[in-house]
Amino acid sequence: MITRYCTPPMAEIWSEATRYARWLDVELAACEAMEAAGIVPAGTAAEVRGKVVLNADRINEIENVTRHDVIAFLTHVEEQAGDPARWLHLGLTSSDVLDTAFAMQMRSAATLVQDSLRDLIAACRDRADLYKNTPIMGRTHGIHAEPTSLGLVFASWAAELDRDDERLTAAITRLSFGKISGAVGNYANLEPAIEAHALSLLGLSPEPVATQVIPRDRHAEFFCALGMIAGTAERVAVNLRLFQRTEVSELFEPFGKGQKGSSAMPHKRNPILAENITGLARTVRSYVSPALENMVLWHERDISHSSVERMIAPDATSLCEFLLYRLAKVIAGIEVDEVRIRANMEITHGLVFSEAVLLALVRSGQPRQKAYEAVQRCAMAARAGQGTFFDLLSRDPLISELLPPRELDQLFDLNHHLRHVPTILKRVLPKE
Amino acid sequence: MITRYCTPPMAEIWSEATRYARWLDVELAACEAMEAAGIVPAGTAAEVRGKVVLNADRINEIENVTRHDVIAFLTHVEEQAGDPARWLHLGLTSSDVLDTAFAMQMRSAATLVQDSLRDLIAACRDRADLYKNTPIMGRTHGIHAEPTSLGLVFASWAAELDRDDERLTAAITRLSFGKISGAVGNYANLEPAIEAHALSLLGLSPEPVATQVIPRDRHAEFFCALGMIAGTAERVAVNLRLFQRTEVSELFEPFGKGQKGSSAMPHKRNPILAENITGLARTVRSYVSPALENMVLWHERDISHSSVERMIAPDATSLCEFLLYRLAKVIAGIEVDEVRIRANMEITHGLVFSEAVLLALVRSGQPRQKAYEAVQRCAMAARAGQGTFFDLLSRDPLISELLPPRELDQLFDLNHHLRHVPTILKRVLPKE
Amino acid sequence: MITRYCTPPMAEIWSEATRYARWLDVELAACEAMEAAGIVPAGTAAEVRGKVVLNADRINEIENVTRHDVIAFLTHVEEQAGDPARWLHLGLTSSDVLDTAFAMQMRSAATLVQDSLRDLIAACRDRADLYKNTPIMGRTHGIHAEPTSLGLVFASWAAELDRDDERLTAAITRLSFGKISGAVGNYANLEPAIEAHALSLLGLSPEPVATQVIPRDRHAEFFCALGMIAGTAERVAVNLRLFQRTEVSELFEPFGKGQKGSSAMPHKRNPILAENITGLARTVRSYVSPALENMVLWHERDISHSSVERMIAPDATSLCEFLLYRLAKVIAGIEVDEVRIRANMEITHGLVFSEAVLLALVRSGQPRQKAYEAVQRCAMAARAGQGTFFDLLSRDPLISELLPPRELDQLFDLNHHLRHVPTILKRVLPKE
Amino acid sequence: MITRYCTPPMAEIWSEATRYARWLDVELAACEAMEAAGIVPAGTAAEVRGKVVLNADRINEIENVTRHDVIAFLTHVEEQAGDPARWLHLGLTSSDVLDTAFAMQMRSAATLVQDSLRDLIAACRDRADLYKNTPIMGRTHGIHAEPTSLGLVFASWAAELDRDDERLTAAITRLSFGKISGAVGNYANLEPAIEAHALSLLGLSPEPVATQVIPRDRHAEFFCALGMIAGTAERVAVNLRLFQRTEVSELFEPFGKGQKGSSAMPHKRNPILAENITGLARTVRSYVSPALENMVLWHERDISHSSVERMIAPDATSLCEFLLYRLAKVIAGIEVDEVRIRANMEITHGLVFSEAVLLALVRSGQPRQKAYEAVQRCAMAARAGQGTFFDLLSRDPLISELLPPRELDQLFDLNHHLRHVPTILKRVLPKE
Repeated sequence: MITRYCTPPMAEIWSEATRYARWLDVELAACEAMEAAGIVPAGTAAEVRGKVVLNADRINEIENVTRHDVIAFLTHVEEQAGDPARWLHLGLTSSDVLDTAFAMQMRSAATLVQDSLRDLIAACRDRADLYKNTPIMGRTHGIHAEPTSLGLVFASWAAELDRDDERLTAAITRLSFGKISGAVGNYANLEPAIEAHALSLLGLSPEPVATQVIPRDRHAEFFCALGMIAGTAERVAVNLRLFQRTEVSELFEPFGKGQKGSSAMPHKRNPILAENITGLARTVRSYVSPALENMVLWHERDISHSSVERMIAPDATSLCEFLLYRLAKVIAGIEVDEVRIRANMEITHGLVFSEAVLLALVRSGQPRQKAYEAVQRCAMAARAGQGTFFDLLSRDPLISELLPPRELDQLFDLNHHLRHVPTILKRVLPKE
Repeated sequence: MITRYCTPPMAEIWSEATRYARWLDVELAACEAMEAAGIVPAGTAAEVRGKVVLNADRINEIENVTRHDVIAFLTHVEEQAGDPARWLHLGLTSSDVLDTAFAMQMRSAATLVQDSLRDLIAACRDRADLYKNTPIMGRTHGIHAEPTSLGLVFASWAAELDRDDERLTAAITRLSFGKISGAVGNYANLEPAIEAHALSLLGLSPEPVATQVIPRDRHAEFFCALGMIAGTAERVAVNLRLFQRTEVSELFEPFGKGQKGSSAMPHKRNPILAENITGLARTVRSYVSPALENMVLWHERDISHSSVERMIAPDATSLCEFLLYRLAKVIAGIEVDEVRIRANMEITHGLVFSEAVLLALVRSGQPRQKAYEAVQRCAMAARAGQGTFFDLLSRDPLISELLPPRELDQLFDLNHHLRHVPTILKRVLPKE
Repeated sequence: MITRYCTPPMAEIWSEATRYARWLDVELAACEAMEAAGIVPAGTAAEVRGKVVLNADRINEIENVTRHDVIAFLTHVEEQAGDPARWLHLGLTSSDVLDTAFAMQMRSAATLVQDSLRDLIAACRDRADLYKNTPIMGRTHGIHAEPTSLGLVFASWAAELDRDDERLTAAITRLSFGKISGAVGNYANLEPAIEAHALSLLGLSPEPVATQVIPRDRHAEFFCALGMIAGTAERVAVNLRLFQRTEVSELFEPFGKGQKGSSAMPHKRNPILAENITGLARTVRSYVSPALENMVLWHERDISHSSVERMIAPDATSLCEFLLYRLAKVIAGIEVDEVRIRANMEITHGLVFSEAVLLALVRSGQPRQKAYEAVQRCAMAARAGQGTFFDLLSRDPLISELLPPRELDQLFDLNHHLRHVPTILKRVLPKE
Repeated sequence: MITRYCTPPMAEIWSEATRYARWLDVELAACEAMEAAGIVPAGTAAEVRGKVVLNADRINEIENVTRHDVIAFLTHVEEQAGDPARWLHLGLTSSDVLDTAFAMQMRSAATLVQDSLRDLIAACRDRADLYKNTPIMGRTHGIHAEPTSLGLVFASWAAELDRDDERLTAAITRLSFGKISGAVGNYANLEPAIEAHALSLLGLSPEPVATQVIPRDRHAEFFCALGMIAGTAERVAVNLRLFQRTEVSELFEPFGKGQKGSSAMPHKRNPILAENITGLARTVRSYVSPALENMVLWHERDISHSSVERMIAPDATSLCEFLLYRLAKVIAGIEVDEVRIRANMEITHGLVFSEAVLLALVRSGQPRQKAYEAVQRCAMAARAGQGTFFDLLSRDPLISELLPPRELDQLFDLNHHLRHVPTILKRVLPKE
């Protein structure tokens, strides 16, 4: 987690201070539940809460000796709270604290990611609506295909992001589980009711069948959800870069005042935000693989997942939130050169209407293959500079016989291609 | 997709014959929808269906010339059906056919995976119930921790597989989308109503905002779901291998009559099924990464995803189904050596009850750290062979003062550890 | 391994027939070595060789019973060769045969990959030389940067492929190791001299410290080498797609006679080969991860790597060879539109010479930042359509004072940018 | 890069201060080379060096405005050095500085990794020598196979680490390249001789064919080399965990004074270092995939690789160095329980000598399959508790006829299995 790619609220979530604070929350929730059950003297949790000011440095100092983080934490709490502290952690195992607290941190981090994701969705929807009537060249294989609407481009991103949001919600739900069930998850020195009470205080559900830890498929699902979000973000970013290429120059990411494009070439305006997002997304995707490997734990647990999560949980969430935040700003501030968009549509001199001609020929009775060859012949001639596509079609004996000039003219109509755009947009724009 | 790791029904789904059959289904569904809309003469689809017998070899022959698969297919259909065939593919683009047919194949393959997954879940639940009262050593870090129930081990797998099943169901739902919306997804030469009608005939929903293709996040989610299933299966398989180690010898995978363990060492009985599943799972996990990369398509589509899917869709689904099928058989036929399980529990001469002792000391008023040190002292002495843990505790001045022999005795009770097993099992076993 | 993406020689290497043939080679080489050492009657290997005609179907039939492939193979050999066959496999373990034979198959497959790689290198060098004097726009961030030579583009690919070749050679060397050292690699029932003799007959070196198997880092390195080759191929393919975009249209992959670009749009000419290579490369890269995981074997071996290799060894080598073969043909047949290249260079009306102007200003005494701002000002004005970059510079009071028209003129010279191309090419073209 | 998993020298290499210091090194090396070539006034570099004290905070402050890191850096240098600073960066592009400096940082980091790697090799060799005569059970599939030498276990790790070292050396060599060749790598405003001179001052070679950047295959190779090192380390770590399982208890990682195994279970001694290394290795392996993706840059470069490298370069090198350092300490301090090792060998009551018996039967004229079945029969009976393997063999009519008691006795000899250990060790231990 590096400052450059991390928002302050996310940094806060993954700070040592927050981590220890969550541990205390879990210990005290368990303590409260035991108070209610009459196992621990009433008021213990409150008394400890009142006496303890967590000091991360001191905890680390103790850990250097014990080499066990939770024991160091408890020792530190005992140093401050004195006798009542001995009621803490009763029947708990370290992982009860660690995994439950981790679930809380993950949920907080996931929520920040989701906030940014929804801002991005809103920005895409907004642009979809704004540009719904702007025709633009549709491209497949990077080659001009048929005209479409610029609004649809944004709508397509919004629709995919909506699915990302659904998946993220499902992942968060399945991540919001804690466990306070002891060393091997069978409540050997605890009661299920204690766990249920304590977790309800923390807003979590009890893991139905825990081992020492919460099973790692829950976390893997979350990293997969982030990986897919990154995939969508990368799709958007790569397309923004394609749109901004000098020869295309249709969309531009916002360019700050005072910004410099290149130390050597003062004329340049580079899509560095979109490129940056591409790289960040690539990085976020890379966390899926170790997260899946983390699922394979030995017996009631081994601790191999721990060092992995210490790295990838803060990194994946912070990078993902950051790239979504950045991308949302790019989309909201996107510059559109409509003149250039229109000019680019005319590069191929009408070749993009070839399908419409083909279909009209088929409808008028030509066998499909023969029609295809006729249209392709004119298209190739147009590409070779032997005339505009329209003229070549008009002069073709086969075609001109079946399609009189006026009919041909109608086939070259742009509005025809956009007539269903409102129907499509309705599927992705929020109902008014 | 290799025969060794593929069931016949799965091979059938991914055969060329099935692929072309699904293409024909899509073309004829679209044709039927156009008949209903009065665009195409009534009875066309039925007539074509009656005349065409698909021949994969002939299609491939044509493709060698055209280098375009759908055009080759249509040419082949036209060869057989004659004139009515010209009504096919009207306003469609190749991807309307390919992606819609692919969705059907993926759904069929996913259903086979899910069948095997559910068989595995049933086998795990069954063993969970059967062994719920069998105590076994719980291990963390590979080290004896505290006693637990063998039934819980299976229950833990069942619970994780249940979540895999939920994720798979979600993925299948989001995969069951087709598109018949033309070259850039805007219904330029089609109507949304035609798509809706045609897809309903095929049991699919219309893609809300398509490009030329169905967005690849839908497929990525499915590969992620398979990756997580593989993760769980690998977890189970690795644990079976750990249980079968010579020194542990608690659980054994079934061993066929006539099977040979080693060409050099006739005495061996190796966990080759579990090892095989480990490797297959590793392979299935590896498809997640290219599936995520496939999401990043240019503009209205590029075709880079196609060769990837041609490899990983059959491979991932067939390997995943196969490994689940194999694992279900292993679990159903698992051999349990209860004598050995009991013997292994006694290796540590009662050290596994140390937490109970620790907690009893804390409850009786000892500060946690002091109690911990006392118990650890006896434990280390027991490990060093200076006596049984029970005896050492009894002789410890601090401990013996607080815990009289009878009380100590109760702490060494196994039933105590299993008392909540029924509660846990209720969460994962089906309601009667 | 699917026919579509596999050359016949590669299919041959990975056929069952070849696999069993290599097994027989290993068994007989070991037998010959034992004959020479006087352990086995002279002539045994020759006699067996003479009597055996391997039949893969029969071996598989036997394996269905024994569930052990090498035992099935040996049983089959014994069926045909009779008594002398009992001298085979003496002191060997299955993995002696499997891993040594696998090394031979891997080396053969790697050699085919290397042949295609070198064809591709030759094609790139050839184009580098042919187009060394063709100026083309250099692009960074997808944005016009400064002019360069088209030959350099190909030279850059050739240089990277050269390094891929070096890495592949190193990997092949480290892959050419066999082992005939018994069940746990310590020659319990064999002699090192037997192994050395047998392997020398097969052209392999003895594994210095084997377990039951050859350590999997050797294989992992090979898959890494393939992954890097795929990375380079993908770089080339993606760039070819960028060059072929409608708005750029500078380079085109060859387009077959009779080929159809799109079933719906007869005018299209899509970079489908380059897109296909992109996808295949993505797939090849994905094999690196399971290959690295395969390194982690338990004790003297577990067999989890085996099912992985059964999939990825044929797939990775066949896809990699195929994509290199295909890419070599694309490069060799590449079409260059020099008119369009020149036209594209003029899109920015000279902005690409901005660095030269900046440097001239600095040389004439301007502080760098002030010079930068002056040039950027003119560049932005040119972009905004307020005049050509040259005119705007000429009219700028600061700049015109320092750079008289004639001097400015020289800065806009294309040849200046290509003057060092021959020096660079010498580094990558073969010495004459 | 987190403190917990990073040595101070590695943290130093990747600090902002070092990064800017390397930038200055590159700028001044280029300046010196230009002084020598008479392009820049003599003494400029020295003058700037004397005046500049880099201040990372100030540079970042400027970057917040310019949003371009190298321009911010140069502005900062100009602030301090005044007029002579305008001679810096003459004809250079940012990437000349960034990539050349990055090569220096990567080389330094790689050297630290290599130092730790060699310490680990030394530790493994040392243990190999120390335990060369200690018999231990060889295990395949986790099942007892045949006896081997504990020294060989360490030797096998040493041999694999040796190959890791070879690969790392090759990667470092191919990483030690810089570039000072301008915006698109063609020396538009520079001379190759300047680059050669400047890079020689920095101990780097010139990139033969650069684009704006150094091609990323060089870096990918390095990450692959780290991935393979991690693979080996994980292999060692997983095996240490297997050895330390309660039921095996043969090898133990060192356990610090005051260390606590579990907050709940005071008796535990967990292999937490080996587990930690397993997780770290998993993380290091995960960087290979984005590093391979980074190779695919657009045209003369895009900047998508940059954010990836900003994360993975420090993380991969620091984690890899740290885990090697930790593992070297574990191996050097490994505790071996020879009593337990010997006891474990006897668990199977001689079954591990089955191969020797099988071979003796074959040598005495039995067909292999018949011999195999006879031995397997006795082995299964021994496993079923019907007697010791030796006794059962002695009583078997077929076997006892061919192998008289004395001969059978010799087959059960442990020394036989270790007789070639010195030969093997010679291959991996350094020559004296």
